[in-house]
This record gives sequence, C-alpha cells and structure tokens, in this order.
Amino acid sequence: MSLELLLLFADRIGTFVFALSGGVAAVRRDMDLFGVITLAFLPAVGGGTLRDLLLDEPVFWLADPWVLGIAAAGGVVAFVAATPVDNFKPLRWADAAGLALFAVTGAAKAQELGYGMPIVLLMGTITATFGGLLRDVVANREPLVLKEDIYATAALFGALIYWLLSLSPLTEALAFAGGFAGALLLRGAAIVWKWSLPKPRA
Amino acid sequence: MSLELLLLFADRIGTFVFALSGGVAAVRRDMDLFGVITLAFLPAVGGGTLRDLLLDEPVFWLADPWVLGIAAAGGVVAFVAATPVDNFKPLRWADAAGLALFAVTGAAKAQELGYGMPIVLLMGTITATFGGLLRDVVANREPLVLKEDIYATAALFGALIYWLLSLSPLTEALAFAGGFAGALLLRGAAIVWKWSLPKPRA
Amino acid sequence: MSLELLLLFADRIGTFVFALSGGVAAVRRDMDLFGVITLAFLPAVGGGTLRDLLLDEPVFWLADPWVLGIAAAGGVVAFVAATPVDNFKPLRWADAAGLALFAVTGAAKAQELGYGMPIVLLMGTITATFGGLLRDVVANREPLVLKEDIYATAALFGALIYWLLSLSPLTEALAFAGGFAGALLLRGAAIVWKWSLPKPRA
Repeated sequence: MSLELLLLFADRIGTFVFALSGGVAAVRRDMDLFGVITLAFLPAVGGGTLRDLLLDEPVFWLADPWVLGIAAAGGVVAFVAATPVDNFKPLRWADAAGLALFAVTGAAKAQELGYGMPIVLLMGTITATFGGLLRDVVANREPLVLKEDIYATAALFGALIYWLLSLSPLTEALAFAGGFAGALLLRGAAIVWKWSLPKPRA
Repeated sequence: MSLELLLLFADRIGTFVFALSGGVAAVRRDMDLFGVITLAFLPAVGGGTLRDLLLDEPVFWLADPWVLGIAAAGGVVAFVAATPVDNFKPLRWADAAGLALFAVTGAAKAQELGYGMPIVLLMGTITATFGGLLRDVVANREPLVLKEDIYATAALFGALIYWLLSLSPLTEALAFAGGFAGALLLRGAAIVWKWSLPKPRA
Repeated sequence: MSLELLLLFADRIGTFVFALSGGVAAVRRDMDLFGVITLAFLPAVGGGTLRDLLLDEPVFWLADPWVLGIAAAGGVVAFVAATPVDNFKPLRWADAAGLALFAVTGAAKAQELGYGMPIVLLMGTITATFGGLLRDVVANREPLVLKEDIYATAALFGALIYWLLSLSPLTEALAFAGGFAGALLLRGAAIVWKWSLPKPRA
C-alpha cells in the first residue's frame, strides 16, 4: 500500500470514529435520527471545514463527498448501537489516532500554503478539535475539550513536532509520521495516566 | 406575475416568517430589543449564509440588503407582539412553506454550480434548517430540529425530489415546483398527523 | 506618533482587553488552560473573523499572527489572575473603548469595499460584538449581549456616526474619530447610568 493510500484509509477511519462520538452524544441527548446524523457530521468534518473557511480554501468535502457518507454512516451506527459503541474501549485509541492524524493533516495544509508557525499550529489544533467543540455546543453541553484532559494540547503538540521536523532536512513523510506519533503518544499518556492541564485556583 | 417575481415574493415572506420564529424565541428568553433582532436574523438568513460560505459564493444578502431589513422587521413584530404571533396557527403553515422554499432554492444553488447529489441535498437541508439550529444554539436551548418532528427530513426530501426531477426532461420550473410540493406535503403531513422520526431505544 | 500607529496600538489594547473577558469567563466555568485560551480567542478575534468570512476578505490575522499572540496572552493573564482582573473597574472602560474601536474599524472595512449603509452598520456591529456572543455560546451561558445593557447598540450607533460622517466632506480620520466617540459616549453613559434597551412585556 502506498503512503498516500494509507493516509486516505486512515483519514476515513478517523472520520468514522469522530462521527461515532457525535452520534453517541446525540443519542444521549435523546435526539432523533436526523439529530444523530447531524451531530455525527460536526466532529467528523467540522474542524476541517472551519480550517478551509479560514484559509479561504475550497471546503474539502465539496470535492470528496464520500466523507459525508462516512460521517452519516457513523451516525447510523451510533443510532442503532450507542451503548455498545460507547463501551467499546478500543475506540478511545482510535479517537486518539484520529486526533493525531487530523492535527498533522491540518498543520500540513497551512504549511503548504506558506503560513508560518502560529497559523500552522492553530490550523492543526482547529482541524483536530474544533469539530468536537461544535458537537458539544450544539448538543448544549459544556465543551469537554475545554475542561478536562489533555486533548487539544496533544493536537497542538503534534502540529508543533510536524512543523519543527518540516524545517529539518527530513522528508515530508517523516515529518508527518513524527507529528502523528507525538500527538498520539501525548494523548495516549493522558489516557493511561489520566493527565490533565492545570486549572486556575478558583 | 412572472415566475421570478413570484419566487422573490415567496422568498421575502419565508424570510419574514423565519425571522418571527427567532424573535419569538428571543422574547421567551427575556432578551432585549437587540437580542430579539439578532435572534430574528439567525433563522431568517443563517442557513443561506452558511450555504454561501461553504460553497465559496458571495453571501446572498451582500447584494440584496433588503433581506436584512425584512429580517429586522420580523424581529420588531415579534418584539411588540410575541404572544399573538406565537398563537397564530397559520404561521406553522407559512413556516412549512418557507422550509420547502429554502430547501429547493438551496438545492438549486448547489445544482447550478455543478455539484452532485450529496452536496445538492446537503445544501438544500442546510439552507432550510441551519438558521433554526443557530437560533436555538444562541438562545441556549436544545435545538428542536434535532429532537422532534419531521422538519429537516422534509427539507431533505424536497431537495431530493428537486434533484431527481432536474435530471428528467422537465423544465427547471417544474423541478422546482415538484421539490417545493414534496417538502411541503411531507412537512404538512407531519404537522397534521404529528409524525416524528424514530428515536434510538435508550 | 502617527495616526496609523496610534490605531494599531489601540487595536492591540482592544484585542487584549477583549481576550481578558473571554479568559475570565472560562475561569468562572472551571475550564483548563486550553479552554481559557480558547475562550480568550473568541471575543478577541471572533467578530473580525466572521466579518472577513462574510465579506470574503482574507481573515485579518492570517497576515498578522501577532494578534493571536496577544489574544493568547490575555488568556494567560486571565488564567493566573482572574479575580483581580474581574474586579479591576477601569477594565470596563477599556472594554468600552475596544467596542467603539472595533465598531468603527469593522464599519470602515465594509465602507472601503463599497458597501452601502446596511452592510456597513452590520459589519461594524458584528466586528464589535459577535466575538462576545461566541464566547457566551461556547461557555454555554446565555449571551449577555442579547439580554442586558446598551452594548451592541453602542457599536451600531458608532458605526452609524462613522457612516454619516464619511458621507460628509470631513476627512476619514475625523469620521473615524466621530464614530469612535459616539460609540464610546453611548456605552459610557450606559455604564454610568445603567441604561438598558427596552424589553418586551412578557
């Protein structure tokens, strides 16, 4: 399998797993089938959509509507099987891999357009986490990504590693792999050891 | 009256009725005049605005600011007469007609730009329903469109009928009328017989 | 100091003060460091970002990422010192000045692009207030700007004064100063005498 095909395949998996998270959240809020599918779309494609709007690039799924089908499929699976999906532990790791992947692909898109570090890191973080934020805002619950856990920070870290490596003489593929691994390791460590960011003393 | 003039007229009515729904929601949340007008804007122009941003088209009201005046007028009417507006039953049917109209105009815009079925259906649905979703998110209540009733589904159905007919040798006007009628009939049936989409077993 | 430099300086201060408001809101909602910085970004750059997306202009901070650093700095300050920041009364006046400034710069951007009164006023108001609205929506609290106080109205008023003066033979700088003063005076009066917009009788 070529690298490009592998990436495409991984991107599809990440989209599907992110969609599951939105679908499950919708089921928990007693939404109907349309609501479940809508909430599946938000984490699956929301981050990349905002990235493209901000960068004034064509929204990625306009030229690749299969993504929408995969997001909808994630919603349907959550609709018929929310509880087993929610209890299926390996999904946390698939979610972590999706986070790491989207952080690096988002950063790479800004990098290719010639932007400097701040925009590259911001776009990596937005691509990986903004969809989940939208999911929580629309479900009218407090956004978890803003309160708990090392999640967005892992995306930011992966984007930073990618950016640093892309300055080095390493190939793009290695920079990509390094950023992905960085985000995944930090997120994984946060899952295993329940790391959290500091909170202010109230 | 020419077809174009009729459509323009219907679009104005739809905008006004959608604005009323936002204004009434704002009054119910004890908002002030600015809040009522802001919440009138969201359902009135929010869906079409998002559609245009996603399609990278100029936002429709930039070239037609009358729409903004009509939305503001809907807000003012809701401000001074929220309870009679809310109790005025025929408004449900005007809202259904607005939903059907925006579903078809949104779908037609994507169709004209050359997009295929998934984008056409998505844009029809977004144009018709996303503004109402924004209204509920900003009013900090759970989005009704995601929980109850056949509403967004009627928009999706109308967009589908339009898309199917636009492949046939029928004229654009007939495809338009068919999509409009399809959405209106399904929404009307849902109002009369209180149809809802299935919900997951919790 | 030239006028341009003064404006740039004022813009930086306004961004920082708006960021503080978001950061403090996040601390009050028990968010972690990432959440505090995210909520600092929303009021600091959210309004101008939406304005640029709607006008199909390049998002302003893409070419000026220092803005992002200033917004992040506001978040960090709120994180370590939310209570003193919140109790520091002069900040209300800095916030009022930020509101007045963003109203005029937002209006001026639309004006320069050749738009008429409705769009100029709308963009002034959006630039000045939409970020605060986003802050409240993401923090899952009812948007204060829609309920209390003369706030958005002051932005609208400043944009109107600017627009009127820009039609007169006065220089752009004077139109700018007039709009700024108008918004600041109205907002200041609302702070001192606790003015509010009318609310509907429920």
